Amino acid sequence: MKRSVKELAALLHAEVLGDGSVMISHISSIQSAREGDLVFVEDEKNLGRALESRAGAVIAGNFAQDSNHGKAVLISDQPRLTFARAAVHLCEYPALSAGIHASAIVSPSARLGAEVTIEAHATVGDDVVIDNGTRIRANCVIGAGTTVGRDCEIHANVTIYPGVRIGNRVVVHAGSVLGSDGFGYVRDRVSGHYEKFPQIGTLIIEDDVEIGANSTIDRGALDATRIGRGTKIDNLVHVGHNAQIGEDVVIAAQTGLSGSAVVEDNVIIGGQVGIADHVRIEQGAILGAQSGIPSRKVIRGKGVVFWGTPARPIREYLKQLAVLARIAKKG
Amino acid sequence: MKRSVKELAALLHAEVLGDGSVMISHISSIQSAREGDLVFVEDEKNLGRALESRAGAVIAGNFAQDSNHGKAVLISDQPRLTFARAAVHLCEYPALSAGIHASAIVSPSARLGAEVTIEAHATVGDDVVIDNGTRIRANCVIGAGTTVGRDCEIHANVTIYPGVRIGNRVVVHAGSVLGSDGFGYVRDRVSGHYEKFPQIGTLIIEDDVEIGANSTIDRGALDATRIGRGTKIDNLVHVGHNAQIGEDVVIAAQTGLSGSAVVEDNVIIGGQVGIADHVRIEQGAILGAQSGIPSRKVIRGKGVVFWGTPARPIREYLKQLAVLARIAKKG
Amino acid sequence: MKRSVKELAALLHAEVLGDGSVMISHISSIQSAREGDLVFVEDEKNLGRALESRAGAVIAGNFAQDSNHGKAVLISDQPRLTFARAAVHLCEYPALSAGIHASAIVSPSARLGAEVTIEAHATVGDDVVIDNGTRIRANCVIGAGTTVGRDCEIHANVTIYPGVRIGNRVVVHAGSVLGSDGFGYVRDRVSGHYEKFPQIGTLIIEDDVEIGANSTIDRGALDATRIGRGTKIDNLVHVGHNAQIGEDVVIAAQTGLSGSAVVEDNVIIGGQVGIADHVRIEQGAILGAQSGIPSRKVIRGKGVVFWGTPARPIREYLKQLAVLARIAKKG
Repeated sequence: MKRSVKELAALLHAEVLGDGSVMISHISSIQSAREGDLVFVEDEKNLGRALESRAGAVIAGNFAQDSNHGKAVLISDQPRLTFARAAVHLCEYPALSAGIHASAIVSPSARLGAEVTIEAHATVGDDVVIDNGTRIRANCVIGAGTTVGRDCEIHANVTIYPGVRIGNRVVVHAGSVLGSDGFGYVRDRVSGHYEKFPQIGTLIIEDDVEIGANSTIDRGALDATRIGRGTKIDNLVHVGHNAQIGEDVVIAAQTGLSGSAVVEDNVIIGGQVGIADHVRIEQGAILGAQSGIPSRKVIRGKGVVFWGTPARPIREYLKQLAVLARIAKKG
Repeated sequence: MKRSVKELAALLHAEVLGDGSVMISHISSIQSAREGDLVFVEDEKNLGRALESRAGAVIAGNFAQDSNHGKAVLISDQPRLTFARAAVHLCEYPALSAGIHASAIVSPSARLGAEVTIEAHATVGDDVVIDNGTRIRANCVIGAGTTVGRDCEIHANVTIYPGVRIGNRVVVHAGSVLGSDGFGYVRDRVSGHYEKFPQIGTLIIEDDVEIGANSTIDRGALDATRIGRGTKIDNLVHVGHNAQIGEDVVIAAQTGLSGSAVVEDNVIIGGQVGIADHVRIEQGAILGAQSGIPSRKVIRGKGVVFWGTPARPIREYLKQLAVLARIAKKG
Repeated sequence: MKRSVKELAALLHAEVLGDGSVMISHISSIQSAREGDLVFVEDEKNLGRALESRAGAVIAGNFAQDSNHGKAVLISDQPRLTFARAAVHLCEYPALSAGIHASAIVSPSARLGAEVTIEAHATVGDDVVIDNGTRIRANCVIGAGTTVGRDCEIHANVTIYPGVRIGNRVVVHAGSVLGSDGFGYVRDRVSGHYEKFPQIGTLIIEDDVEIGANSTIDRGALDATRIGRGTKIDNLVHVGHNAQIGEDVVIAAQTGLSGSAVVEDNVIIGGQVGIADHVRIEQGAILGAQSGIPSRKVIRGKGVVFWGTPARPIREYLKQLAVLARIAKKG
């Protein structure tokens, strides 16, 4: 989709420096930029590279106001964000024709909204409700009684167990499993065998959540597992039964949350972090990659980074590492 | 399914206190209990909450014998276990009609027992044998020559490679892969390239095993990988080629076992544990979350908890952490 | 496939000791060997066991030259490699009839080479190109515009997003996801919400790569993620957007690479390793299992093993562990 710099500036509430009539048709990185591409810079030291690139226009911060350049520049307080929003106006995603593919199996009792897409070999169970504009890609299996909101994208080969509730604009990447049984057993003290504890709760995923590829989110045992609005979950993440994740939480790849863990709003969790059962991560805490939070611990501190296993404030942890290195060198 | 408290008590070998004629139709947590629900308490301090809840009846330990209560109580030595068993009598799981969906592809040489379900878009290869009452859910792919025992549940989108042998009452959750090639290569010293070592062994899964979602269990290179009776494996777990896992082992999410690891009976393994090749975890040891066992180590100690990388008895590990923290504080 | 020892020796460029007319029909481990099986030994101490086994012939190193044995022996500089190559000549893999299964959905604009197999319920999108001899197994979903080279094997339930480029002889195991969106968001400082950063780059997988089951490899954000020739990736591995992996790299199970990580040629990475964003692992370094490389670090040292989080040369790390254990014992 071609747009002039001026037109983009209006859509993005950005200020234009230079020639607003330049036509932009795509986005790119600075290194790969070609004529007609839009690029962005977040700090002054990369501005020169951007201006010298072949890009048609550059999104930059206020630091670019006074620089002398022959290229169209869009000034924004948040250049990266403005670039991300520009992409929405410039990138054409391949259109999927709405409708149900002839090979999909849709229960007669399922209720589908307007402009819903059900691709090849997908299965939609009894009493499923799918709202307007949602796309169920090839080979997905949507269990009975599940509801999916508006404008969601459920990528290929996703399995959703029965009775899961998914909000609006939720994106689930390929191969993820939602609402699977939690890992709960009771050991019979007499036989020594494990018997299954019922896993009959549900999973609630609120609006604007995105879930990566091959992640697994278990349903609650008796009540609900919950993923709050706007939370973003990367690939191969595990969320155990009854976990409660707040809003605008970010969870990087291969992290695992055990049963009944609570993660409050605005928490940031690195990759491969392990959160044991009944842990509480309070508002805005940051967990460094590979850190581990033992059972029932509470992590508190908005903007404080924790690291290590068991996780400590990073300053403390780094000091311990330094002291140990020093002693070992001497010893 | 509605049952009276008296009827349940008989099924569960529990003693009734109070009105045995109360009708129970479902199970729930104490916090969500409604009329007709059955709840349980494991310790005396939660008994009051249970009795004051809206639940129709409470399963409790002997500590509830003498308490004064207006609600029906079932007394059990193992309240949580009794509750889990009650669920089997109360919860109605959606019936699947046995039979082969018209869209499933079943080889003419496959042999299916009575009351077998093969759901939509599943593929069953040549010479596969599936015993009575087993359900193969939508989009599963069962490789040639695999055998699946009685009353198994293979959830959606599971892939089973050729020649795997699965026992009775095995549950495999969505997206798991069973019998994939092990990770074995030989580096040619001349070219520096890796060539594939043959992965022609098999995978044997014994009775009553449950495997979580998106886990991967590789076949043996030349012989068999084996998962013993009653073992429970969580989501996103990796089991490498030739691993030998005993009976009644519990393995939490995201743990990985390298090739030829041996895990004896009754071992408990936390989440994100890493077990290197040729390790032996002996009877009844407990590995804390995120711990790591280096190549060829033997871990010994029934009921002993090990933690850290390399894993040490937890007492030792905690002492080391404490000493380090103390020194760092001073230094 | 039956072959005489003499015939095998010619194919494998090995020297025969003893009776070259013995017929060999299969490979096996020493412990399971039966008549007609070929086995191998890499060191002298296992030679006796091999010669006493029921195997028909033994591949061994030069150490077996002078031993007195009644069994046919093939002498090789690299016995394990020679055994792996022998397997190619001996093992008969079940033939798949080339062709498109009636239930597969192949876009009319897709171009398929000769002897291509598309199994049941697979979906091949618009403008996909699949070269000669490649097999797309059941339930795979190949996104629009993707190209797959010659003689690849894409196992069941794999999802490949649009526009991915895959070389020749690439093997992808079941359930893996290639080319999914990277984990990139921009937080709006005003609303506090995360918005998606465009993930419109691609994924390039070069020749002779093998990828395990349920792994996820994200496409680049604006440019390409790249996996170099001959690299082998195990199960449940995560590769983030824009990562650049060199040639002949080995990555064990459950390891994760964050965005823009660079791994040079011949690196060996153990299981559950975490590599943060913008890290560079230089030529031939070795990362021990569960080690962690913090953001933007450079790891350098051909053949040097690094361990721990943050990763240090293993000698240093082990010394630190030893010193800590000693102090804790005293204290």
